[in-house]
Amino acid sequence: MQNKITGTGSYIPTIIQKNEDFLSHDFFDEQQLKIPNSNEIIIKKFQAITGIEERRYVSSDLQSSDIGTIAAERAIKNSGINPEELDYIIVGQNFGDVSQGNTQIDMLPSIASRIKYNLKIKNPNCVAYDVIFGCPGWLQGVIQADAFIKAGMASKCLIVGTETLSRVVDPFDRDSMIYSDGAGACILEKNENSNSGILSSANQSFTLDEAYYLFYGSSYNPSENQETKYIKMHGRKIYEFALNNVPLAMKTAVDRSGVAIDAISKILIHQANEKMDEAIIKRFYLLYDKQMPENIMPMSIHKLGNSSVATVPTLLDLILKNQLKGHQIAEGDVLLIASVGAGMNVNAVVYRY
Amino acid sequence: MQNKITGTGSYIPTIIQKNEDFLSHDFFDEQQLKIPNSNEIIIKKFQAITGIEERRYVSSDLQSSDIGTIAAERAIKNSGINPEELDYIIVGQNFGDVSQGNTQIDMLPSIASRIKYNLKIKNPNCVAYDVIFGCPGWLQGVIQADAFIKAGMASKCLIVGTETLSRVVDPFDRDSMIYSDGAGACILEKNENSNSGILSSANQSFTLDEAYYLFYGSSYNPSENQETKYIKMHGRKIYEFALNNVPLAMKTAVDRSGVAIDAISKILIHQANEKMDEAIIKRFYLLYDKQMPENIMPMSIHKLGNSSVATVPTLLDLILKNQLKGHQIAEGDVLLIASVGAGMNVNAVVYRY
Repeated sequence: MQNKITGTGSYIPTIIQKNEDFLSHDFFDEQQLKIPNSNEIIIKKFQAITGIEERRYVSSDLQSSDIGTIAAERAIKNSGINPEELDYIIVGQNFGDVSQGNTQIDMLPSIASRIKYNLKIKNPNCVAYDVIFGCPGWLQGVIQADAFIKAGMASKCLIVGTETLSRVVDPFDRDSMIYSDGAGACILEKNENSNSGILSSANQSFTLDEAYYLFYGSSYNPSENQETKYIKMHGRKIYEFALNNVPLAMKTAVDRSGVAIDAISKILIHQANEKMDEAIIKRFYLLYDKQMPENIMPMSIHKLGNSSVATVPTLLDLILKNQLKGHQIAEGDVLLIASVGAGMNVNAVVYRY
Repeated sequence: MQNKITGTGSYIPTIIQKNEDFLSHDFFDEQQLKIPNSNEIIIKKFQAITGIEERRYVSSDLQSSDIGTIAAERAIKNSGINPEELDYIIVGQNFGDVSQGNTQIDMLPSIASRIKYNLKIKNPNCVAYDVIFGCPGWLQGVIQADAFIKAGMASKCLIVGTETLSRVVDPFDRDSMIYSDGAGACILEKNENSNSGILSSANQSFTLDEAYYLFYGSSYNPSENQETKYIKMHGRKIYEFALNNVPLAMKTAVDRSGVAIDAISKILIHQANEKMDEAIIKRFYLLYDKQMPENIMPMSIHKLGNSSVATVPTLLDLILKNQLKGHQIAEGDVLLIASVGAGMNVNAVVYRY
């Protein structure tokens, strides 16, 4: 008896920001020195590593809770449930609502409360809260919903991941090219009739040296107001951290599931950086003395960038709706879903469709 | 077999802000009009309703994660556990870290990650996340920890509530006198040997009309920058909402616990407003055709104000450490713990000591 995803939904923002749109930017490094390379070279190198050609930004009228609502509506419709039957609305997010041109995070009330308000759900026993857990926040919400159902506290949960990173980037930082906006959602339900659903999970927080690998910091441009903070990261440290720790967490989840490594049909990994994601999956298979199978890792990063908590539920939704070329999910397929991000947090779930 | 609180801790900030310290303020109303009454009258009326004589603010060098760390250290020490054995660090918070003089919420990384970092916990299997659930966030963290233990995912959890409302108040709003800073924490452990622990819980989110009763809004002083947002509330609506809904949620928790109403020795309620809290408890007893017993409701609001997520764990810690005059908790005592706040969220827990 495993709890089952019965519907998915996502929202892909409408504004396409291409790599060439950054050609006019002035890029500075961590030492606040102007980067000597031309922007053509910076962007070419960026694309070669991350795989990102373009990313999506929300229009000026939208905030994180708005796009989270759209993804939620689609997941509810897809599942066919009556939203009044939801026991929980859990939202993975990290920057609340930030309106265009503003620098303040607004999460009073929580993004989950806003989404429940937008969905016009009357039932007060549908409990709405946000979980702050970096990019793995959506998957952590799924793990929490799974626990609530197992503990007899819930039967039907909506889990949303929504983020508008375009509102918190430093335009003078090359890393701003990574970040994107997006929202994804799923319905997790108690399932007593089949063998499909969540088989196992693993989650970890590394804080001893790693807590501030992703942090809120000042603009790299020394002429900008240094009191205003933006999303910042120590990219190389994160890369090494992820390679060392994500494959092990994935293995923990697989070992707990009892599923054989060769039974895994797809790995849905947080769309952080294509080279890093590939290196993680390769190293994961090396733990089993195996080579990474062909076509095991569906990617959306080329066109959608890194939208934090939204990448994994969006990827899942795209595949299930046959909108990601070359990838399908069939009944009986086993997915390994994994994420890594600010905290530094890592999680993984094994799921049988 | 119920999960048990094995240690508590709190931090009471050092700066005492008395009511008379507001005598020099210029107060405006929601319509941004100067309030005609003298500050003496405003403050006298405020004190008569809320019971608040003074509140606590953190010193300029401290942020929410710092005081949350101190409360956590005290709870760990009080429980006697090895912090490396913790499976979860769950932090109820609503405004992240806000440094003195800044208007930006910083929760990258999460407050839970910061507290784990400050505690120097090495174990990566200790998962750290924040829950955004208004003032009831700490109690909601306890309910979540209880679920994780019941689901077999955890044995020992640290739950912290920490907030520095002094950093997000509009000094031109009378309601700013309500808000205070503080942090409280507890350790919840799996307990197989005794009859004490969490007997039941209830939680709800009211969003249809209520979502924005507490909200992030502009200063009531029209001369201030209207882009900058502060904590704001519709006090009368909250008062009516709380009176209508908190007693029912408390009754749900009591009914689920199987404990008789007369067996409840104390009610620890979120320190929001003394008159409101009294009215809630009176109405709760009316649901059982009973009168509110004497000395059932310990209060800390007179000297500590409303510190959001911190009020309930601080109150519990003060009583257990014999620091609240006239109140003790003895073995076998049954507590009813309840909270209400932004969201609008309500929760309640029945606990046997």
